[in-house]
Formats: sequence, structure tokens, C-alpha cells
Amino acid sequence: MAKEKIIGMTVKKSENFSDWYTEVIQKAELADYAAIAGCIVFRPYSYEIWEFIQDYINKDIKKRGHKNAYFPLFIPESFFKKESDHVEGFAPEVAWIEQKEGDAERYALRPTSEAIMMDSYSKWVKSHRDLPILLNQWCNVVRWETKVTKPFLRTREFLWQEGHTAHKNQKEAEEEVNVSHEMYRKLVEEEMAIPVLTGKKSDAEKFAGADYTTAHEAIMPDGRALQMCTSHYLGQNFAKAFDIKFLDENEKHAHAHTTSWGMSTRTIGAIIMAHGDDKGLIMPPRMAPIQAVIIPILFDDSKKNVLKAAGELKEKLSGIRVHLDERDNYSPGWKYNHWELKGVPVRIEIGPKDVAKKQVVLVRRDTGDKTAVKITELVKKLPVLLETIQKSMYAKALKFLKASIHSAKTFKEFSDIIEKKRGFIKADWCGDRACEEKIKDKTTATVRLIDGKGKPSGKCAHCGKKATAVAYFAKSY
Amino acid sequence: MAKEKIIGMTVKKSENFSDWYTEVIQKAELADYAAIAGCIVFRPYSYEIWEFIQDYINKDIKKRGHKNAYFPLFIPESFFKKESDHVEGFAPEVAWIEQKEGDAERYALRPTSEAIMMDSYSKWVKSHRDLPILLNQWCNVVRWETKVTKPFLRTREFLWQEGHTAHKNQKEAEEEVNVSHEMYRKLVEEEMAIPVLTGKKSDAEKFAGADYTTAHEAIMPDGRALQMCTSHYLGQNFAKAFDIKFLDENEKHAHAHTTSWGMSTRTIGAIIMAHGDDKGLIMPPRMAPIQAVIIPILFDDSKKNVLKAAGELKEKLSGIRVHLDERDNYSPGWKYNHWELKGVPVRIEIGPKDVAKKQVVLVRRDTGDKTAVKITELVKKLPVLLETIQKSMYAKALKFLKASIHSAKTFKEFSDIIEKKRGFIKADWCGDRACEEKIKDKTTATVRLIDGKGKPSGKCAHCGKKATAVAYFAKSY
Repeated sequence: MAKEKIIGMTVKKSENFSDWYTEVIQKAELADYAAIAGCIVFRPYSYEIWEFIQDYINKDIKKRGHKNAYFPLFIPESFFKKESDHVEGFAPEVAWIEQKEGDAERYALRPTSEAIMMDSYSKWVKSHRDLPILLNQWCNVVRWETKVTKPFLRTREFLWQEGHTAHKNQKEAEEEVNVSHEMYRKLVEEEMAIPVLTGKKSDAEKFAGADYTTAHEAIMPDGRALQMCTSHYLGQNFAKAFDIKFLDENEKHAHAHTTSWGMSTRTIGAIIMAHGDDKGLIMPPRMAPIQAVIIPILFDDSKKNVLKAAGELKEKLSGIRVHLDERDNYSPGWKYNHWELKGVPVRIEIGPKDVAKKQVVLVRRDTGDKTAVKITELVKKLPVLLETIQKSMYAKALKFLKASIHSAKTFKEFSDIIEKKRGFIKADWCGDRACEEKIKDKTTATVRLIDGKGKPSGKCAHCGKKATAVAYFAKSY
Repeated sequence: MAKEKIIGMTVKKSENFSDWYTEVIQKAELADYAAIAGCIVFRPYSYEIWEFIQDYINKDIKKRGHKNAYFPLFIPESFFKKESDHVEGFAPEVAWIEQKEGDAERYALRPTSEAIMMDSYSKWVKSHRDLPILLNQWCNVVRWETKVTKPFLRTREFLWQEGHTAHKNQKEAEEEVNVSHEMYRKLVEEEMAIPVLTGKKSDAEKFAGADYTTAHEAIMPDGRALQMCTSHYLGQNFAKAFDIKFLDENEKHAHAHTTSWGMSTRTIGAIIMAHGDDKGLIMPPRMAPIQAVIIPILFDDSKKNVLKAAGELKEKLSGIRVHLDERDNYSPGWKYNHWELKGVPVRIEIGPKDVAKKQVVLVRRDTGDKTAVKITELVKKLPVLLETIQKSMYAKALKFLKASIHSAKTFKEFSDIIEKKRGFIKADWCGDRACEEKIKDKTTATVRLIDGKGKPSGKCAHCGKKATAVAYFAKSY
């Protein structure tokens, strides 16, 4: 047997969450730091997670009549300035290309594509019959971050999808925002097994140029919130700036109502943080690139038999994403470590005694529980076990989310929670932008969401003025 | 009935090929010019063609053990310079981003990703057990063209896949080049219905940094060649420049052998050019986003019945990509034009008389042939017809390719063909780079391919020196 490197984790999640995150990303071969500061290499194991997200969203939006398209990476400076809130919001982190001889003006690398897409929409829309326009694009986006970057969560280039739609009235546009918002919730909660709080953003936190922004926010183990996606109702702001005008049913000119909604590769970071443990990553079964790994326990005298049985097992489980690790230069123990690091939900052990008993041993990644299962029953029992793990991971995360929501009546309580417990602070709030700014200055917490169903009963937990909303505050990624 | 715009083509393919191309792209809603010179918007109809190509290649390479990954858009200037032929080949058309405070050096936007990927490979490869590395990425690429741009064929940003592999020896690496080359041939010939010549590039035309480049070349109706893809054997050039070194089975250090291979969105341009006619686009059935369109012929008294039958027809044909055009504000004639423009391979007409006879009328886009077919037989006959059209389109293109290959013994003959007939010139050639340069200066034709099987019998058709190869020359896109 060849010499084996020690591959396990060296940092505990509970002891140094930030270092743990960096270690798990590299050791599970999810990403690598690139030669350019603030950029990462998406290695195949994280890209496969991204492909799952792509398939899921493509299936959903295509069923709803959306199509994919692709617009240029380059946005003329003049376009970018047409919507004043928009340019102000993005200006600090825009990257520009060096002007070449003959270039008409300066070109930005897209930080988002409203400007370039709305320019095309204005050419395509003449009549109400040309609406709705329902397009989406999968692309890279550049935001030259000045803050500290972190793999997946904050990088200077990342991947995302951005849906951009134009409608003939507000009702249809808002319906589109709602449906996309709900698509994301299902993807995040049901596939990623991450429960979320959901609602609207405050004015300070909404998308630059939007009437309003809806989002889902998850809580990470260090008590910081992570925004999973956003869906924006852009009103007629961009339609007016880019002149997307049409002749309606009554032969009158009207401006379209537009929406945009996006989810990015930062969700991969959320999956890692939310579910991982001291041994490494734990992938939710539904989106795990490998759902079960077969590890044959090999001894010289029974090797052939066991490998044969393992091969047959793999064939039998063709409906499941199974990998058979038959490398002979690594011990079973090394392989256990390796696949635990990569968070494969179920390990299937098969040794000579198991072959004799016509059974295998299933080991859950999330709990470590072991069960012997007859091979004849495996095709039936493995999918059930995978679903059990999926639900159990969600339930665990939901318990944590619930325990992470704290109420505060006074700013003393508010500050104490931010300092000692973190998590979400649910509090009555005046809704004032200046007040929000002060809270941020004092605590670094921001309004993550406004609770759509919440009814404020008293005074703003910070300034003491009359409360107009119930808000969730948190420190965030 | 609403007023109908005239939507048909106004330029004939045979009369003004270049204007025809521009018109068909816009009227078939394939692409739009973007606000940035030299860039286009990929509208859904062309992007769906790209998605077909993505699915095809993903399926093939994943079966062969390749995985997708994603590397940064940005390439440090220092990396880019490590392989001297490489930097020289790409330097004129590289776009750079404006340096910001704190940037360590200048960053290019990737014109291709060998440099950035090989840097990572050098970190990942230590032992022969780490090889092969079989990665691919789907991404945008930037080449700031100074020549005239043309939608799909030559734009400053385009989409492609780039496979990059590293192997422990030359044999494995060359095998990889061959297999990728053959994958492309099948995709181009069998799916796109475009026959190709195939072979190696001359030294002047090969990839900057490669030992050799293989390619498939198609002929366009104006007699110019179009390169459909390339596969490069990079030898140890990049491995040495980026230090991709490993300990082999005998515990000796060796440099890896690398390959790269790519196909881009320019193939969409080839499909348009190769198959279109005076009425617009003709899509090869296998990759057509819509394979058949049902047009109900509606009269007031029988409308309900016909729409009902058309709806049932669509359900029946669920295995085929069928679109039912039931818009009531356009006449059947307008719809015929519209879907002919978009090149849908088969039109299914169904009117009240057809309903009475339990039949439909099938109209072939490529030939205009009409046949009445019993509805009960349609599920069986439509797929057969689609395959017939696919084969017939290929046969037609193959006939044209064969007729476009001319032999030349002397430079007089060579020049005459380039001036009068264009197409490929098959000629004995000395293989000398200076000779190739002179031919290019005099005729603008270049060596498109070296015929691997060809045995030169005499002297170079240009310089008269001893011929060492049989080459295909042509003007090209």
C-alpha cells in the first residue's frame, strides 16, 4: 500500500469557524484561490453543485415560458448612467476595460445586466403583443470588491443567473416577482435543506433602481445572516430610463413594468456553512453530486469476490448517483475520511463477511449511524434513507434558525444580543433610513428583512419613535 | 385581423450573400447588434441552438470522465507571458482591465484559458496518480478584433467550451486530441448536417503554443472556408512554462503532456450560412429548437373543431419538439412566412377539410414538398420525415463540398480558382512557412488543412520546390 497523506480536517467548526470554512473548501476540493486576488477557481465538485442549481432553475423557468439568452459582458458608460440610483449603487465596485483606439466610450464589465438588456428590450417592444418578455441569462459577473473577499460568498467574479422580464402592467410584473421568489424558496429549503426567513428589503438595502426587493435570508452557524437570492420589482424606473414603451390595447403609449431576479454561486457557500461539521462537508442528498459511495473492504483472499459484489451493487443502484471507490492504493479508513470530507450522504461498506451474509453496511454522514441492510432490499431502502437524511438535515437547520431569532424591545437588549448571541433580532422599527444607518454604525447589523406579516406594537427599538414595521436585523455576509 | 407587417426576406442568398446573412440573423430573431461595436446579443432562438451544442458535448465528455469547472476571467499579465509563442499569438487582440489601486499587476480578459488553468494544474499535479486531469469549461471569451466583425463568426466577445487536459505521456494526450476531434466531427456532420474536411493545421495557422492543431473545415456558399473547431496537442510546452511536473511510476520527475480543444458559438453562423435559402433559415431537424410547427387553418364556422384537433395533434407528438401557432391575429400565410424564416423543418397544416378526412398536410422546409398524411400514421411518419430531411440536407451540403474542391498544379491555376471559383484548392505544397506567407499576400488564401492521407507527387504549386504535403488552401472566415 502506498504512503497515505493525512487528509482530514485540522480545524474544528465550533472553534474557528472562518478557518474551518477555508479548510473545508480546499480539502473537499470545492475551490482554490486563484492567482488574482479576490477570485477563485470553481473546481469540479463545486461546479457540479452549480450545475444542479442550473438544471433546477432552467426546468422551472422554461416550464413558465422563459427562455435563456446572452447579452454582452460590456456595458457602455453612458447606459450605465441612465438610471441614477442604479449607477450610484454600483459605481464603487465597477471594473472598466482599458479604452482602445476607436472605442466610442468607456466600457464597464457587467456588475448586473439591467442596463444592457433594457436597451435591447426598448428596441423589441412596440406593442402590447410584444409583452411579456421573459428572458434569463447564465453568466459571469464582475464586482471589484474592496471589502475582504471569501470563496463563494464574496469574490470579484462570480457566476449567476439573472432573469429580466418586462410586462404590460404592475400586476403581472409583481406576480412574476412572487413566482420567482417562491421558486427560490423551494430550491433553497427543499433541495439545499436550508430554512429561510423571507420578506422585503428596507430602502437602504434594496437593489439600486428597484421599487422594492424581496429576498430569502438564512442564518449561518456563526450567527451571521446570508442572503440567498433576490427578486426585484423595478416598477417603471428602468422602462422610463431606457424608453421601453408600447402601444396598449387602447392604442395608448405606456411604459413597461420590469422585474429582475437572481441567484448566484454564493449559495454554494451557504450549503457548506449550514451543514458541514468537524469532519468536513455534508451534502444534502437531493443535490449531492455523489449520493452514496461504495467502499469495498479488501483482503487478499477475498478481494475478487468483494469487488465483484461491489460492482454488481453499483449496477443495481443505477437510479442513484453512486460512486464505487475501488482504488487499491488507499485503505478503507483513508477512504472513509476522504468521502466524509466531501460530505457524501451515505457510505456503503461491503466486506467479505457482508458478501457471505448478502448484506451491506450503510453509514449516514450526518449522524454516523450504521445499519446492516440485505442487498435485496437496498434498491428500496437507500432512496428512503437519502430522503430521511434530507429531512433530518432540514429539521436540524430549522431548529437552529428558530433558536437564532431573538426579540429586542430596547436598544440595550438589541446591542447585547448582537454582541453575545448574534442571530436575527426581531424588533419593532420606525422604518427610517437615518435610524437604520445609525444602528449599522453602532452594531454593524442591518435590516435583513421586513416581516410582511409582522404588526409593530410599540416603539422603535432603537430611536424610540413610533414603529411602523417589524424587522429582522442581523450582521450579515 | 390586425395589420400585418411584411416579414419575409428582401435579399436573395445568391445575389448578396453578406447582406442576406445579416438580414436572416435579424429577421429570424437569432441575434441583434449590441450597443458595443463588435458585440452581439444572442437572442433565445440562437441560444437554444447553443444549448443543444452544450448538451451534446456535456453528454459526450462526461461519459468519458471529464468534468466541468470554472476558472477566472482575468489572467495576470505575467502568466500570459510565460509561453512565448502563446503571448505573441494573442497579444494584438487582448483586452485589459483598468488597473485599480492595490492591483498587483495588469489583468487581461481571457482570450483563451491555457495560462490560468495550467497555473492551477501545476498545483494539483504531484504524482502520476493525479493524472489525467480532464476538465472543461463553458465561458465567454474576449478577443478585441481589429478586423471587420460579423455576428457569430467574428465578435469581440463570444461563448465557447474549452477542454483542457493533462496526461502522463504523449500517447495518452494524443489519444485525447483524437477522441475530441472525432466528437466534434460527429456533432458537425451528423447533427449540424455540415460535411467537413479534416486534418492538421500548418505551422503558421496552428494554435499559438501548440505542437500541432487538428481541425474540421467546412465550405460556405460563397466559397470561403469556415473552421468549425480545433483540437490542440500542446506537447510539454505549457507544462514546462507552468511547471506541471509529476513523479512517474519509476519515481522520476516528468512534465505532463497537455491538450486543449474548443468549439464556439461561431458554429451557429455556419449552420445559418450552410443551409439557409432565399426564404430564410433552414434548421437541421436534429438540432432544431422547433422541429415541426402546427398551423391551424381557421374559419369562423369550423374554428373550434380545427383548434381542438390541432391541440390533440400536439399532445400526440409529445416526443417531438412541436409548436402550435394558434395566434388569431395573424393569417396562415403570414405564419407560413414567419416559420419558414425561422427554418422550422416541417410545417403541419390542418384545416376543416383535413379534420374531416382525419389527415394533415406536411410541408418540408428544405424542398417545399407537400404530403397529406393520416393523423393515425403521423406519430410514426413525422420522425421518419425529420430524419429524411436531416440526411437530405447533409447530402446536399456534401455535394456542394465535393464540387468546391479544385486541384491546382500551377500557381496560374491556383490564382484562377481563387479568383473565379473560390472553394478549396487541393495542391501539392512545399510546407515552407515563407511560401505560405507569399501565397497569402498574393491571394489572401491560407492553408486550411494538411491532408493527412495525401501523398504529394510533384512540386509545390506555388514556389516549385519539392512538395512535402498535400494541402487544402482557401479564403476563410
